[in-house]
Amino acid sequence: MIIVMKPDHTPAQAEAVSERLANFGLKAQPIHGATRTVIAALGQVLQDHRDEMSMMQGVDEVIRVSKPYKLSSRETHPADTVIDVGFGVKIGGGRPVFMAGPCSIETEDQLWASAQGVREAGAHVLRGGAFKPRSSPYAFQGLGVPGLKMLRQAGDELGMPVITECLSVRDIDAVAQYTDIIQIGARNMQNFVLLEQAGKTGKPVLLKRGMAGTIEEWLLASEYILSQNNPNVMLCERGIRTFETATRNTMDLNAIALVKRLSHLPVISDPSHGTGKWYLVRPMTMASIAVGADGLEIEVHPNPDHALSDGAQSLTPANFAEMANDARALASAIGRPFADVPARVAAR
Amino acid sequence: MIIVMKPDHTPAQAEAVSERLANFGLKAQPIHGATRTVIAALGQVLQDHRDEMSMMQGVDEVIRVSKPYKLSSRETHPADTVIDVGFGVKIGGGRPVFMAGPCSIETEDQLWASAQGVREAGAHVLRGGAFKPRSSPYAFQGLGVPGLKMLRQAGDELGMPVITECLSVRDIDAVAQYTDIIQIGARNMQNFVLLEQAGKTGKPVLLKRGMAGTIEEWLLASEYILSQNNPNVMLCERGIRTFETATRNTMDLNAIALVKRLSHLPVISDPSHGTGKWYLVRPMTMASIAVGADGLEIEVHPNPDHALSDGAQSLTPANFAEMANDARALASAIGRPFADVPARVAAR
Amino acid sequence: MIIVMKPDHTPAQAEAVSERLANFGLKAQPIHGATRTVIAALGQVLQDHRDEMSMMQGVDEVIRVSKPYKLSSRETHPADTVIDVGFGVKIGGGRPVFMAGPCSIETEDQLWASAQGVREAGAHVLRGGAFKPRSSPYAFQGLGVPGLKMLRQAGDELGMPVITECLSVRDIDAVAQYTDIIQIGARNMQNFVLLEQAGKTGKPVLLKRGMAGTIEEWLLASEYILSQNNPNVMLCERGIRTFETATRNTMDLNAIALVKRLSHLPVISDPSHGTGKWYLVRPMTMASIAVGADGLEIEVHPNPDHALSDGAQSLTPANFAEMANDARALASAIGRPFADVPARVAAR
Amino acid sequence: MIIVMKPDHTPAQAEAVSERLANFGLKAQPIHGATRTVIAALGQVLQDHRDEMSMMQGVDEVIRVSKPYKLSSRETHPADTVIDVGFGVKIGGGRPVFMAGPCSIETEDQLWASAQGVREAGAHVLRGGAFKPRSSPYAFQGLGVPGLKMLRQAGDELGMPVITECLSVRDIDAVAQYTDIIQIGARNMQNFVLLEQAGKTGKPVLLKRGMAGTIEEWLLASEYILSQNNPNVMLCERGIRTFETATRNTMDLNAIALVKRLSHLPVISDPSHGTGKWYLVRPMTMASIAVGADGLEIEVHPNPDHALSDGAQSLTPANFAEMANDARALASAIGRPFADVPARVAAR
Repeated sequence: MIIVMKPDHTPAQAEAVSERLANFGLKAQPIHGATRTVIAALGQVLQDHRDEMSMMQGVDEVIRVSKPYKLSSRETHPADTVIDVGFGVKIGGGRPVFMAGPCSIETEDQLWASAQGVREAGAHVLRGGAFKPRSSPYAFQGLGVPGLKMLRQAGDELGMPVITECLSVRDIDAVAQYTDIIQIGARNMQNFVLLEQAGKTGKPVLLKRGMAGTIEEWLLASEYILSQNNPNVMLCERGIRTFETATRNTMDLNAIALVKRLSHLPVISDPSHGTGKWYLVRPMTMASIAVGADGLEIEVHPNPDHALSDGAQSLTPANFAEMANDARALASAIGRPFADVPARVAAR
Repeated sequence: MIIVMKPDHTPAQAEAVSERLANFGLKAQPIHGATRTVIAALGQVLQDHRDEMSMMQGVDEVIRVSKPYKLSSRETHPADTVIDVGFGVKIGGGRPVFMAGPCSIETEDQLWASAQGVREAGAHVLRGGAFKPRSSPYAFQGLGVPGLKMLRQAGDELGMPVITECLSVRDIDAVAQYTDIIQIGARNMQNFVLLEQAGKTGKPVLLKRGMAGTIEEWLLASEYILSQNNPNVMLCERGIRTFETATRNTMDLNAIALVKRLSHLPVISDPSHGTGKWYLVRPMTMASIAVGADGLEIEVHPNPDHALSDGAQSLTPANFAEMANDARALASAIGRPFADVPARVAAR
Repeated sequence: MIIVMKPDHTPAQAEAVSERLANFGLKAQPIHGATRTVIAALGQVLQDHRDEMSMMQGVDEVIRVSKPYKLSSRETHPADTVIDVGFGVKIGGGRPVFMAGPCSIETEDQLWASAQGVREAGAHVLRGGAFKPRSSPYAFQGLGVPGLKMLRQAGDELGMPVITECLSVRDIDAVAQYTDIIQIGARNMQNFVLLEQAGKTGKPVLLKRGMAGTIEEWLLASEYILSQNNPNVMLCERGIRTFETATRNTMDLNAIALVKRLSHLPVISDPSHGTGKWYLVRPMTMASIAVGADGLEIEVHPNPDHALSDGAQSLTPANFAEMANDARALASAIGRPFADVPARVAAR
Repeated sequence: MIIVMKPDHTPAQAEAVSERLANFGLKAQPIHGATRTVIAALGQVLQDHRDEMSMMQGVDEVIRVSKPYKLSSRETHPADTVIDVGFGVKIGGGRPVFMAGPCSIETEDQLWASAQGVREAGAHVLRGGAFKPRSSPYAFQGLGVPGLKMLRQAGDELGMPVITECLSVRDIDAVAQYTDIIQIGARNMQNFVLLEQAGKTGKPVLLKRGMAGTIEEWLLASEYILSQNNPNVMLCERGIRTFETATRNTMDLNAIALVKRLSHLPVISDPSHGTGKWYLVRPMTMASIAVGADGLEIEVHPNPDHALSDGAQSLTPANFAEMANDARALASAIGRPFADVPARVAAR
């Protein structure tokens, strides 16, 4: 921690700063520059120390030097974390995976059509939402536990691990019971009680970045899970909120490349939410692999029995399959081939 | 809902759009412009309708016409909502209030010193945090239920309603038991399960705007509470996240003025979090009153027994009292005098 | 400048850093913390030094300590700058002014109607646009020099200084010839050649903040003008671009309060552009005065002879006059009464 | 254009709207929905029409239907624009190019070392800055015309087209004389006079996206150039400004994919400015090719004679060459191989 004193601070104020640091068990080292005096604080600095120092008389600014995150940092854990999510699927360590399926689980037929389609196209993990966060209370909120059961059954029949979102500590036990990976959505990135409870389940957790979440806050949020002795955390970039409204969100691929450097945790990319436009999912999937993502989470809508939307513009199992082919070719060309897909256990 | 067709759409695609609208019980009215065809959809349009239409072939864009929020809208409820929060304090309807007290409740002495100070300075509501949302799991997280009890006791002794934040559905019953107003923090603006549970308590709820929350999302979030037959919702602007880092957040006073027009709910301003700098609290308090806020939420640190921070730069009871005086003068000058402070019930 | 070394840097790398600093004439002072080593660089640090250091091996981060702006800083010039803009009007130093008039000068009648209206309502400076920055090349671009002449004549007849925007170095001589204050628009905040040329005219310059301009960049931009030996610079907050689209821009009143602290230059508020909604101009005008602005720039549309827009929702001279009355009452109540309006020189 | 009336508008107000539209030569078609009345305006709608309508009594909102940009739109020009920039290099149409070289031209040796390095590594275009936009007036501003001459000579000797930034209309003739492509920087995206003057030179123009420039504004800015009968415009994404500060800017690869759909103009990616970190240039270069960019603009620092920065972390010719190899492999794997590099004309 570096404490920048005001140009007109008094010697007594500088002394008070040093004394306060001593109370915190920190060593104060003053440095007199051309225009400013700064005091370096040596020792184990906590956030609360910084807050207090910044309010002292004569202090202009307090600058942090050490990174505030620890368990998620590559400095303390240089090797990539690889997470076994079941059914022989491993995430992290260089070979990307596809997590695909419907946004919401609506009916058994709809889920099965999508699940079967993505399984055949080479997806590794089946995704599907049973609890849906909706901006408006007047929109469809998901099937709840019955949806979870349908998802579990589809995963078991197809031999795929499943992932689903948990919205609240209220539902954490039910979600943990039926899923292989617990997803924490962007709106809950800083729902700290939920993060702790998810950590306590011991299940792998996928933590989405909040719409206004900085990379540092995102890594700190992951520490709420990791500090429950749950090392199985993966991160997911799904677009941040900026001034640009031509796309639903602004996908921050810089963040994927940077977090791969700062942290050992796997990083997944979600181009479906990150772009909000079906026709941008393909190019952003390709870009995510090229930038180093450990996996993709993709929404696939089946709409198999609905004449009107026969040719709907969403990603269908058919064009997901086509995209997956191209993605595999790209991944191989850059020396990071997709992970193998486990042999199918059973078929309906 | 207005459906904008692509320039090169086919007649069959337009027809399919009209048929799908009919399935939703909506009437389709096509309009052929100079460069584009649009189809107006007449009837009760839901979010899910819009999502589906936007994925149909030949559709370029779907534009909403009606506002998605209802219970919070001034269109449906023209008169200002006025909320009785107990101890004779009413919020809303033109006469601002002060909610003040320490950020975190640390000790009984610290709380009492701050509470007594703000009571004497004319605050209407006592604020204090027992559960603290912290970006890092390694920072002080609050006293929990013992803190709630201390807050309740201080409020009762001083004859002031109290407000405190609830972080999780886990704590909602405890918080509802001890507080007069439940605060939902910025990080939980879209924690929809928490909003519903807070609504169900029947207690007045103060809903802070999320760091990336649009005004529309904020009003929609309030509907999660209102739709539990709890009309006692107030909103709180506490700064949004932008590219500017010279202040902790960017206070959006535009939003206060606009929400007062769009909605009948009281709007509170929180310049302590909105600026992150003690010396900006005063000017932004003055500005908030001038722009039409129904109240201010202010952090006041006592530090009475701590020699080193004697002259600390935070807002002390003494300079809160001075600011409150000036704020009252301003409020009276613009014809919106502060609400009366109830007579003190008891003293220690 | 503080140079934070990587955890795994080598002694040779630290030595290379110290040597490079010595080459720049800076003294290196290493500090060994619990988890990190930092090297403080003492002496006159330039931006180019920082850029070079940040690229050296073993360096993790370079942190600036001194403020990069100088001439605009209150540290070097504690007293408020007060600018004489002619016709007896002074800007800065505590007493706000109104600058008002039409967005674009369209016809002599339209300009005169607006000018006369705002003069009668107590405006100090007449604003009007002759060169208009338009996002689209297919929109009205302004009258150019004939517009400038009309503005000058109206100002002279009414005894008011005038302000108008200069879009390009191409027009700087013409604009300087006819105006009392040269306005640099938000899109040109970092058009550095234009800033220098505006500075060279010696005329007072009003520098608007860019839509993505940080407070630091804004003050640095002002230095391009100030460093031409032109001390007559005033700043103007007109809203920044954020994710919120319910208002055209997000007015950053935090910035007004903060810049008044950091700098001695007068700060003007432009609620017309800052909100983009006529009905938010009044509340944000009141808030701007309360927060400490040295003046307001307001668009007033006359539309006197246009039956259809008779009751149009824009700010008319009549409701500008009403608002100005309320603003004067507020300003007086907080001890910062509006500047006197010079006696009218002539009338048509 | 769709005009949304307020819920409580009067029939006279609706009639006034229709009359005003008729004055503009537009046909009004009212549509009465469940909760709102809207009036569709049919015909050629201009921005000025929308501005006026939005101020009429009874009008709540005005929604645009047609895209405001024309010449840059793929609707009016479906085929990719391919620009011949000289020396046999063509940009656009599917095969990417590298533009590489030093940020600033400092000395002939420095320029030549970098130029020769990037030529050997397969770059198509030589970049170099002679006029530098600097936030601070106290930083190095570039060599000016002597730098332009050095750049021209290096390009001629190496048989490469050159690109350099023009900061001001003051310099446009000099820049046009010495360069093959005129670069307009992010700060000047809406310097409309400069755009027009650049268009008039007839030279190919590379238009960078502003830090707060929406995709729509960017395309509209390109129309200022295109409307000068200069079809040779290419766009360049270089990162936008968001709340995230861990990277200098947030590269918006969504925008590259979307603009390729909306427009026929070539789109270049600038990961050097887009990330601000040398070690993110490689992954974002790979991602940019995968997402469909027509080229990359990369800063390469030679530092050949400077012992201390021998191993500096910037992109050196050597690691640019390595990255270029990998990029070519990726591009070929996705069926969009890099453009051929013309045979070298001469060598020093």
